[in-house]
Amino acid sequence: MRTLAMALAALATPALAQVPLLSPAERDVRDRIIAAAQADARGYRIIEDLTTEIGPRLAGSPAEARARDWAVARLRAEGFGEVRVEPFSIIYWGRLKERASVQGRFTQPLMVAAIGGSPSTPAGGLTAEVVRFTHMDELRAADPATVRGKIVFIDEVMVPSGNGVTYGATVAKRRACAPVAAEKGAAACLVRSAGTSNRWPHVGQGARGAAAAIPKAVIANADAAQLTRLMARGPVTLNLDLQTESTPNAPSGNVIAEIRGTEKPDEIVLVACHLDSWDNSVGALDDAFGCGVTTAAARIATEVAGPPKRTIRVVWFGAEEVGILGGIAYAERHKADLPKHIIASQSDSGGAPAFALETGVGDPASPAVQAMVEALRPLSIVRAGNAGTGGPDIGPMRAQGVPVFDLEQDVSAYFSIHHTGDDTLEQVDPASVRCNSAAYALMIWRAAWTDADFRAKPVAR
Amino acid sequence: MRTLAMALAALATPALAQVPLLSPAERDVRDRIIAAAQADARGYRIIEDLTTEIGPRLAGSPAEARARDWAVARLRAEGFGEVRVEPFSIIYWGRLKERASVQGRFTQPLMVAAIGGSPSTPAGGLTAEVVRFTHMDELRAADPATVRGKIVFIDEVMVPSGNGVTYGATVAKRRACAPVAAEKGAAACLVRSAGTSNRWPHVGQGARGAAAAIPKAVIANADAAQLTRLMARGPVTLNLDLQTESTPNAPSGNVIAEIRGTEKPDEIVLVACHLDSWDNSVGALDDAFGCGVTTAAARIATEVAGPPKRTIRVVWFGAEEVGILGGIAYAERHKADLPKHIIASQSDSGGAPAFALETGVGDPASPAVQAMVEALRPLSIVRAGNAGTGGPDIGPMRAQGVPVFDLEQDVSAYFSIHHTGDDTLEQVDPASVRCNSAAYALMIWRAAWTDADFRAKPVAR
Repeated sequence: MRTLAMALAALATPALAQVPLLSPAERDVRDRIIAAAQADARGYRIIEDLTTEIGPRLAGSPAEARARDWAVARLRAEGFGEVRVEPFSIIYWGRLKERASVQGRFTQPLMVAAIGGSPSTPAGGLTAEVVRFTHMDELRAADPATVRGKIVFIDEVMVPSGNGVTYGATVAKRRACAPVAAEKGAAACLVRSAGTSNRWPHVGQGARGAAAAIPKAVIANADAAQLTRLMARGPVTLNLDLQTESTPNAPSGNVIAEIRGTEKPDEIVLVACHLDSWDNSVGALDDAFGCGVTTAAARIATEVAGPPKRTIRVVWFGAEEVGILGGIAYAERHKADLPKHIIASQSDSGGAPAFALETGVGDPASPAVQAMVEALRPLSIVRAGNAGTGGPDIGPMRAQGVPVFDLEQDVSAYFSIHHTGDDTLEQVDPASVRCNSAAYALMIWRAAWTDADFRAKPVAR
Repeated sequence: MRTLAMALAALATPALAQVPLLSPAERDVRDRIIAAAQADARGYRIIEDLTTEIGPRLAGSPAEARARDWAVARLRAEGFGEVRVEPFSIIYWGRLKERASVQGRFTQPLMVAAIGGSPSTPAGGLTAEVVRFTHMDELRAADPATVRGKIVFIDEVMVPSGNGVTYGATVAKRRACAPVAAEKGAAACLVRSAGTSNRWPHVGQGARGAAAAIPKAVIANADAAQLTRLMARGPVTLNLDLQTESTPNAPSGNVIAEIRGTEKPDEIVLVACHLDSWDNSVGALDDAFGCGVTTAAARIATEVAGPPKRTIRVVWFGAEEVGILGGIAYAERHKADLPKHIIASQSDSGGAPAFALETGVGDPASPAVQAMVEALRPLSIVRAGNAGTGGPDIGPMRAQGVPVFDLEQDVSAYFSIHHTGDDTLEQVDPASVRCNSAAYALMIWRAAWTDADFRAKPVAR
């Protein structure tokens, strides 16, 4: 029986593989999309122009507001029929000054950056002894008497990983430190930079709320190692001077551009990036790259395949960096429409060429998914699993059932650039922009020109 | 005749090669020096301890003074019989604030650093239009009317070069810009960073004197490219805010440690590094590396070969970065002794393993030089030419006839680190410290345990 089953399987597999999932006409469209993407300059131009003409664009800042106006004008100029801003309010937070200096016989400055949301220290800084932990669990287990009045230093190191799993693990301390340290009576939190940059502090958002309201900063990787070496020579007292500002009702917003569907305009194929960046760079990879890629992809698909059946919606989310506030605002505002969202996918993992398709769909083996995989195959994009997230701003809508797709990228190099001063246009490879524009264009095409249902659960086959 | 000459040459070469330039006993010393260096941890420990315990040590600052005290104690602890400071005074200069921001519709910050010696701008900065040149000759040829009242921007790019020749060519503008721009009535000078760092401004010293006394700054490579893209979109006005301080009589000094010669104590074999660093990093490669290497080398040679005939003098120069002031002070103070300086060599070219010996001697083919080349051969160090400089602080004594040796290093990677915030202990490869300690120990041995005269001109051979 076993042998017979195996023989049948052996017969079945080549037979299945011979079923053409894309028709000859569709293969022609696919090839023309790839060719058009390879000749496209729009994606890179959007990245160059956004980063050059706006520069850094911190959530809630005047620069982010200028970026929204810029985006509306640019998306109209790129030929999107409907372009609008969906505004929302956020708490704006900005850094004014950040300085750390070792006191006593080894006096020297260390490179730090305030964590998003950090309150100010008293003017002139707070001065306290440093107490070191190598990870959060050590702090959680610590006797409050050893921590009270001190600067807690979480010295957990991130090693590079191609899929970013070590980033997720080690960045958690940036949010976790302050609430735990504050409860034990600590004066401040200092956490080793996530990411692998040597000297740029890896900036980012911290936990919000009264329970996390102690001064908190990241310290550059080299400076964390320096501090650890100094502590090996005896107790270290640090002066930590963080001056920050905050505004309760600052404007942000999502910029939305559409190519309306001809047959089912209320059905939405959503591709996205985020418009805001951190304040220490122009955010070329994070995430102007995603805006260039997904916007060019929507245009390329339409120019090759004609008007789509369903509506293609490109969203440039606001205020992603400070807590995916754009994604949350979108899911709230569009709650009633989310069942009509066919797929959603955000490009926000750096600038490497996509190499795998991870789905987050009802039936990962459906013919519609298989056809998408076949469409992507000429780009050397392989099939991964069905645990996709869709990207940070997609999370809130995915939680409400929207099917998602991830085009996975190698992030080995990304986390030495991400959230640092080094995230400049020099990091963007135009060839990679074209590759990923092709991949997104193919994904959009397989979703917006078909009746595919990525939500449906598997049927018995 | 030609054929006969060639045949004779063919005979002569192997014959020459068979002359043993090092005796069996000397080969044994050589091998033991290399083995001792490969097992040595002192070089790296000096680098680690100096950079950790002092941190940045700008010329003339309290940190450089602490570094001198540290160096005296450390060199004594390392077993040098005589250790002293030769003090001198310098003009101290330090940065207090440096900020540049594009004005108008593309408003954004750019990353700049004041050039050493720059005066302050008025409080709040000076605001002027930028006028761009791609190299100094364009500025020199410019009509003063096009420059008057403006911020001159020299956008000359350095490409990497293994031997550093492009650094020398492109760093010249840092000194050259202000005098030329000031004479034409410019408001300020902004020069693209030398070196290849993307976002760290490459700091450094500018020209001194009244003719160069306009505000002057370097702009990071990425920001220079950004400024050029902005200028392609229309005239750019910049606010440049540099606040600096200066003190006329600040202390500096050279730290000198000796192992006295037994037979000819007045003859000096000098190896060197510099103790000061720029203020944006701990100067691990520039030049703690050189201090660790040359100091360990002197100890290793002595421990293997016993007391030297001639005196080994290790000099940790002060105030190199701000104009080789330590080297100038040394040559002045020791003018009368310089004829007794057998050789001088400074390690100050980054952290790569030495690969070639470039001499600056009277007779580059002398048996003494050939013996030194043979000593270095097991380290894969090849013979280069006779245009050696000895290193920056050696220049003033070389000008007075002191023979010099350079152990050349590949600098392809160095100029992305040099004078930037990235020059931290992480850049130091302990294996390279050991390699170069071996090379310097062999050089010292061939100079201090022999009667070699590297000054003598060739005799007819």
